[in-house]
Amino acid sequence: MKLNDRGLLIVISGPSGVGKGTVRKALFDMKNHNLEYSVSVTTRAPRVGEVDGKDYYFVNRAAFEEMIRQDRFLEYAEFVGSYYGTPKDKVEEMLDKGKEVVLEIEVDGALQVRERMKDAVFIFLVPPSKKALYERLSRRGTDTPEIVNKRFQKAESEFKLAYKYDYIVVNDDVNNAADRIMAIIRAEHARTQRTIQKYQQLMEE
Amino acid sequence: MKLNDRGLLIVISGPSGVGKGTVRKALFDMKNHNLEYSVSVTTRAPRVGEVDGKDYYFVNRAAFEEMIRQDRFLEYAEFVGSYYGTPKDKVEEMLDKGKEVVLEIEVDGALQVRERMKDAVFIFLVPPSKKALYERLSRRGTDTPEIVNKRFQKAESEFKLAYKYDYIVVNDDVNNAADRIMAIIRAEHARTQRTIQKYQQLMEE
Repeated sequence: MKLNDRGLLIVISGPSGVGKGTVRKALFDMKNHNLEYSVSVTTRAPRVGEVDGKDYYFVNRAAFEEMIRQDRFLEYAEFVGSYYGTPKDKVEEMLDKGKEVVLEIEVDGALQVRERMKDAVFIFLVPPSKKALYERLSRRGTDTPEIVNKRFQKAESEFKLAYKYDYIVVNDDVNNAADRIMAIIRAEHARTQRTIQKYQQLMEE
Repeated sequence: MKLNDRGLLIVISGPSGVGKGTVRKALFDMKNHNLEYSVSVTTRAPRVGEVDGKDYYFVNRAAFEEMIRQDRFLEYAEFVGSYYGTPKDKVEEMLDKGKEVVLEIEVDGALQVRERMKDAVFIFLVPPSKKALYERLSRRGTDTPEIVNKRFQKAESEFKLAYKYDYIVVNDDVNNAADRIMAIIRAEHARTQRTIQKYQQLMEE
């Protein structure tokens, strides 16, 4: 029996190259979960095979900027000339249905969400060591040493923001990390600030 | 990989008759746990078969009161003329060894621990409904209706203290409750306040 019927907003973030996407995938591959992706809004053109409302909500620049003015994003950013954002109303809708909504986003975006959703759960994914992260960044193979170094420096500056998160999870093994995130979701549903209201109602009956 | 090597002090409490003992037993029956009981100190006489240092630490009244004066208890109480207390040094010793120390105690005792161990995890076990609790209290069979009513009234006054705890867990099914407590233990090990120090050391190497 759950004393909290609403879903949780789970923000998975962490320094560049730590493996956020892989961990999120492992999470969604687990059994019996109640997780949902949040579909982003973007101004970039759809690629072949991309479906509006599934891969992204595709809008034009004027529409996106109107949404910014109306404060309808949990977070947004401009990247190589296109906007990307997480629409607040869609997320709230899923949470009301009891879905756990997972955002896998960069550190900048996560801190924007923090401002708007006090109730969300913030998880900072970290590498087992700096060396491991450097190797992971190099392994992609397609980047020049200059680009690898630049991304590593960016990661190093992001390391310092861990204290802004609720949890720090080491991505030493992708399944361990996913298991721990699942435990965090289960535990957070029982936290007193989420359960006390329904509990008090129950005890008045 | 864990960023917190120290064990957690897990305080399981809740209103009289909610089934704390049964849930604690289910917890210790689970596989791969790292849980330890805390052995209490008492002034009552050992019963046949009870072993000093295993069932209780048996001491005389003067020794117990000296321990109170030295603030060596996490909590203590007097019950039917005998003292019972949780010795702080033994608990700290087990935590340092990385054990999760479980205290299954009454609400009064839990609030005493709260004062002394800011870092402990406080779980309030609750019945699925008032009716269920009343039935459970009646079912013991050995008590008169007056005693059942008295215990139920005590439970009702304890219901109000839920807000002092970190988590509220419903004991609708003993295995569900134990599973959720295990998830809480896993999650708490990843909480930023417990992990940030070791994480920062790691990122300085």
